[in-house]
Amino acid sequence: EFKVWLKNKYHSIEALNTAWGNIFWSMEYNNFAQIQLPNQCVTDPNPSHLLDFKRFSSDQVITFNRIQVEVLRNHSSAPLIHNYMGRITDFDHYKVGADLDIASWDSYPLGFLEDRSEEGDDWKLHFSQQGDPDFQAFHHDLYRCVGRGRWWIMEQQPGPVNWAPYNPAPLPGMVRLWSWEAFAHGAEAVCYFRWRQAPFAQEQMHTGLYTPDNNPAPGLAEASTVAAEIESMPEVSTAKAQVALVFDYESDWAWQIQPQGASFNYFKLVLDYYRALRSLGLSIDIIPPDSSSLANYKLVVIPGLMTFDTQLTQAIESFTGTVLAGPRSGSKTANFALNLQPPMPGINNKVSYVESLRPSVELPLKESGNVINWIETTTGDDPVIERTAHDRPILIGTDKRQYLSAWPDREALKRMLKKLCSAEGIAVQELAEGLRVRETQTHRFVFNYNPDPVQYKGASLAPAAVHWELL
Amino acid sequence: EFKVWLKNKYHSIEALNTAWGNIFWSMEYNNFAQIQLPNQCVTDPNPSHLLDFKRFSSDQVITFNRIQVEVLRNHSSAPLIHNYMGRITDFDHYKVGADLDIASWDSYPLGFLEDRSEEGDDWKLHFSQQGDPDFQAFHHDLYRCVGRGRWWIMEQQPGPVNWAPYNPAPLPGMVRLWSWEAFAHGAEAVCYFRWRQAPFAQEQMHTGLYTPDNNPAPGLAEASTVAAEIESMPEVSTAKAQVALVFDYESDWAWQIQPQGASFNYFKLVLDYYRALRSLGLSIDIIPPDSSSLANYKLVVIPGLMTFDTQLTQAIESFTGTVLAGPRSGSKTANFALNLQPPMPGINNKVSYVESLRPSVELPLKESGNVINWIETTTGDDPVIERTAHDRPILIGTDKRQYLSAWPDREALKRMLKKLCSAEGIAVQELAEGLRVRETQTHRFVFNYNPDPVQYKGASLAPAAVHWELL
Amino acid sequence: EFKVWLKNKYHSIEALNTAWGNIFWSMEYNNFAQIQLPNQCVTDPNPSHLLDFKRFSSDQVITFNRIQVEVLRNHSSAPLIHNYMGRITDFDHYKVGADLDIASWDSYPLGFLEDRSEEGDDWKLHFSQQGDPDFQAFHHDLYRCVGRGRWWIMEQQPGPVNWAPYNPAPLPGMVRLWSWEAFAHGAEAVCYFRWRQAPFAQEQMHTGLYTPDNNPAPGLAEASTVAAEIESMPEVSTAKAQVALVFDYESDWAWQIQPQGASFNYFKLVLDYYRALRSLGLSIDIIPPDSSSLANYKLVVIPGLMTFDTQLTQAIESFTGTVLAGPRSGSKTANFALNLQPPMPGINNKVSYVESLRPSVELPLKESGNVINWIETTTGDDPVIERTAHDRPILIGTDKRQYLSAWPDREALKRMLKKLCSAEGIAVQELAEGLRVRETQTHRFVFNYNPDPVQYKGASLAPAAVHWELL
Repeated sequence: EFKVWLKNKYHSIEALNTAWGNIFWSMEYNNFAQIQLPNQCVTDPNPSHLLDFKRFSSDQVITFNRIQVEVLRNHSSAPLIHNYMGRITDFDHYKVGADLDIASWDSYPLGFLEDRSEEGDDWKLHFSQQGDPDFQAFHHDLYRCVGRGRWWIMEQQPGPVNWAPYNPAPLPGMVRLWSWEAFAHGAEAVCYFRWRQAPFAQEQMHTGLYTPDNNPAPGLAEASTVAAEIESMPEVSTAKAQVALVFDYESDWAWQIQPQGASFNYFKLVLDYYRALRSLGLSIDIIPPDSSSLANYKLVVIPGLMTFDTQLTQAIESFTGTVLAGPRSGSKTANFALNLQPPMPGINNKVSYVESLRPSVELPLKESGNVINWIETTTGDDPVIERTAHDRPILIGTDKRQYLSAWPDREALKRMLKKLCSAEGIAVQELAEGLRVRETQTHRFVFNYNPDPVQYKGASLAPAAVHWELL
Repeated sequence: EFKVWLKNKYHSIEALNTAWGNIFWSMEYNNFAQIQLPNQCVTDPNPSHLLDFKRFSSDQVITFNRIQVEVLRNHSSAPLIHNYMGRITDFDHYKVGADLDIASWDSYPLGFLEDRSEEGDDWKLHFSQQGDPDFQAFHHDLYRCVGRGRWWIMEQQPGPVNWAPYNPAPLPGMVRLWSWEAFAHGAEAVCYFRWRQAPFAQEQMHTGLYTPDNNPAPGLAEASTVAAEIESMPEVSTAKAQVALVFDYESDWAWQIQPQGASFNYFKLVLDYYRALRSLGLSIDIIPPDSSSLANYKLVVIPGLMTFDTQLTQAIESFTGTVLAGPRSGSKTANFALNLQPPMPGINNKVSYVESLRPSVELPLKESGNVINWIETTTGDDPVIERTAHDRPILIGTDKRQYLSAWPDREALKRMLKKLCSAEGIAVQELAEGLRVRETQTHRFVFNYNPDPVQYKGASLAPAAVHWELL
Repeated sequence: EFKVWLKNKYHSIEALNTAWGNIFWSMEYNNFAQIQLPNQCVTDPNPSHLLDFKRFSSDQVITFNRIQVEVLRNHSSAPLIHNYMGRITDFDHYKVGADLDIASWDSYPLGFLEDRSEEGDDWKLHFSQQGDPDFQAFHHDLYRCVGRGRWWIMEQQPGPVNWAPYNPAPLPGMVRLWSWEAFAHGAEAVCYFRWRQAPFAQEQMHTGLYTPDNNPAPGLAEASTVAAEIESMPEVSTAKAQVALVFDYESDWAWQIQPQGASFNYFKLVLDYYRALRSLGLSIDIIPPDSSSLANYKLVVIPGLMTFDTQLTQAIESFTGTVLAGPRSGSKTANFALNLQPPMPGINNKVSYVESLRPSVELPLKESGNVINWIETTTGDDPVIERTAHDRPILIGTDKRQYLSAWPDREALKRMLKKLCSAEGIAVQELAEGLRVRETQTHRFVFNYNPDPVQYKGASLAPAAVHWELL
């Protein structure tokens, strides 16, 4: 089927050979029948071959889902929904979501902190009973986009689970906090998994709202509290954010295929940007890589986007706000060849040289913070906005179009984003570590992810506190 | 054959479906022929399925051994013996041992420290030429039980071996110390492996008592010293210990199948208890999980026992001494479902909530030491004996029946066990780090596992010293 | 074919059984047809079996190369050349090289530092943009030997590559330094890989001298500088070194098969000796294990040589200079049995006891430095030259023939080698860390591998500096 998919895409074997650059290493094919799966090769497979296989695999999921949707639409007018998981990028969720009515995801903040976070041990220790303070919100915003505004939590962790390397209990109050945070990000529903703990088989150690002998488990009271609190709240609506972040499934495949440095991880890069924006108190929209208009936003950030397609390019060209892109953004053609043109609309420099850095390398910046993981050299006459202490340009462009040719650490990234917000008149708020904010149309919600009290506007917020105030 | 074994055990497929909880995930079988081995499944296999496979595998070994025993008994009245290894728990040694006359094991203190100890680098460095000070003794006591009093060392390490990640030489004196320690624990014989080092093939780097060219190797003089010393000793007999520790092969399989936290290791848990008791100068008996009487003991400790069977339950009910059990003791039925009743005889609380902790987490206790790795919440009215600094109960019950619902660190565990010994009138002795004691009916033997001299009763014991005194 | 190879070597199965020691574990074969490849065995394969398989595999490469050579010689009188890689020891390069006219290798200093160096993180951080200061020189000297004086760099890294875990850029000046260092070691040519970066397929991220759109890449200017500088240099010739180091492919196979301690790595051992000699400012020749004369040298060092063959033994016997061998040198017969005779010509002691040490173990020496990784006990009356602080002999023999029965750390090894040089009247020069020297017949070249300036003869050498002076 992969061969059929390729034939439908390229029509002629010559076109495929050109698209993939098969002249390299004399890899030209004579016909589609010769093409194998890109594994068990003598040496590295062609990255273009690998990327097309990833696209094909994703298309298989999309097609399979569509077949089911068509069957169900014939028999039901109920909205159709599917539940995704945290940090699963094997197929394009935007495209699957386009055939459904509601997106949902399974949120296991403690399990995900232990089994799929890139953060270090100190971070994991600090948040071991609360979860990463940005991981949930990121997925809330992602699936709000995938569901075109309609989204649920299909499975909310109500206590210790059975599948992570370590399975501690949520800090008292966190089940309530997680639930409220989902609603603040626009969830229509939060369902808990599971209702009653099963006393046998594979998931016997996965807690529920009730114990196996039908007594209330600790999560139940918190879920009940949320239910009661929601009853007394006025109806709230999701606010449109002023800041958007582009997240792209193909880019994740591309940089898995060709990391170039062992620490270049697309998901981590995007989460770093999201985290920096969140730590400035901002509400964020996640948008797809084929967005046709950015008109609703003031600032759009685009880290590590493999290719700018025509639609996004036109959207940027007609956008009056600020765009910050990079590193690696626009570095490839859609066929996974090097893009020899400037990396993004509005930038004239070209990327001429790419370096990946071992984890212990830190290149200090002139202002504050360091470059880590990745740095590019660009060639051209674009104005330089920031440099390393050794005078290497890392941020170039104009007020409204900037290309960041390096991976800044947390401090530096936050500083740069703050400056861009200020230029666009976006109000920011420096939050204490572990404190997070999300605004609806009428309220500002404040969440304390710390195990200790923190100060917010002169008051002390308890661990796991959820605070809200009218805007 | 696994299917036959299952049919013999459950008789009907309905009984198996109920026992395993196969209603979960619709795993019900229609007949025994459908049951596969519990590997290469689409997702996790049912833990009940896995545990039965472990039991079946163990039974295969038992049966195979029994066939050989029957053949030999027809031709010989010599006692039958088999040699086990350190920390090998793949089959039930008690059951194999029941068909034999003598148990023996292969003791490689340095190799085992390097290739199967859970301790950290500092510990391994300190004991790199002596071996873990409790690992040998634990196995001596275990195989004394497996051999119903009769046991040997079949292979005693006499120098560097060839198979561990690092193969240093024993500290001078350790070959003598290891040999004496075995006799102090009741060994009938200590054999050295090997007599003469082979100059070729796989084991050419495994030292013996003689070098390959037939000169004495360093171990020989120490072995000769022990032989001479034993000649001049009166016949000694194994003393009955006042403290017993339950060790169970099935529990090791169970917690390998379902660790729930990556650091929950049954062997390590049991060794932690054994080590704490030993560091109090106690002699310990290891007893099997189906013991029918505890009457010879004053204190019985039962860490992590999956299930209390009827026999042990009755033994505890008629026992006038103290029993300390937990964590995870009694947490499962024999079918690997959750036990929804109190975890042990004499306790009324139920375990309602289980948390596993990442290695860096330490929950300080009100008295001293910390909880690490594991903590449970119990529900009920049992008196609380110990709490964490944040007031969570971790030790509950009465003077004589206590359940420890957490994994204490070395300091806390020693403190708790000391208190129980004191209540039972068992004399303890706080030993210097690395000093260990074993009593026979007439003598107290003292072993210095340290590479440095330590004080004992006002005198200095040299590194690798073996000291004995009349009781 | 392996069976045929074995039959050609041993003629009778009895001879093979004896050579391999197959009496051990009753491994005797009845005929050659029974012999399998030494993998997927029930337990460890016989090391003699494994070593013969390595020899057979190497011979296959040699034969294959020879067939091609014969074809080409019939059609061309051009010199024949093959390019080897860094730290690839799977076949005997001396034997392949004997059929060719020129040896060459692919030098990727930064890639090799990241993906095949044994050094620690601090070292890798310090040299992350320069490469290990001895790795290139070692291979230059090795392939000068393999090519019997004629050698090239076939691929010189000109910038970041695409295949190492991290791919930083060379420090400015390093492309020039690496090129000059090759010439100082006698290279006939240095070719850069690649000329122009390919914009597609597997190596699209591998820089060249030109960018994919045909602009000069940073490496080009440095390559041009070297070309111009060479033009203005007088013709120089390779100097004969006063010190030789034996490197042996079979020994690498042997200690991979039987490391005895996880940190015993032959390549690392040899590089440690090479590094110590280089840090004394010496130029070194690498020579093969079947050298028939050492007459050109004053000092020959032979670390970890599995077996002294007749030719090398005779060469040593007639050599008037100093030989330092060990550890493990001469410890095996050619059949991979223990050598029960003295380890090297001129030594009477025998090795009676071998210990491998975990990485954290350091045995301090009486003078300075420590023993790490490995220590042997020898038996006999040879004079003792050095001892550990606990009085264990580690260096024995006469002024001219010494056996080092341990693995010294950097400081101790340098001290010992310095003393031997002094006794032979070889001038040494204590160089600053990261500074390296190579002499031709007329010039001394000095290379600063540091990212910082260092002092040399009162002047400051910039990072990546190449300095030369007339002798």
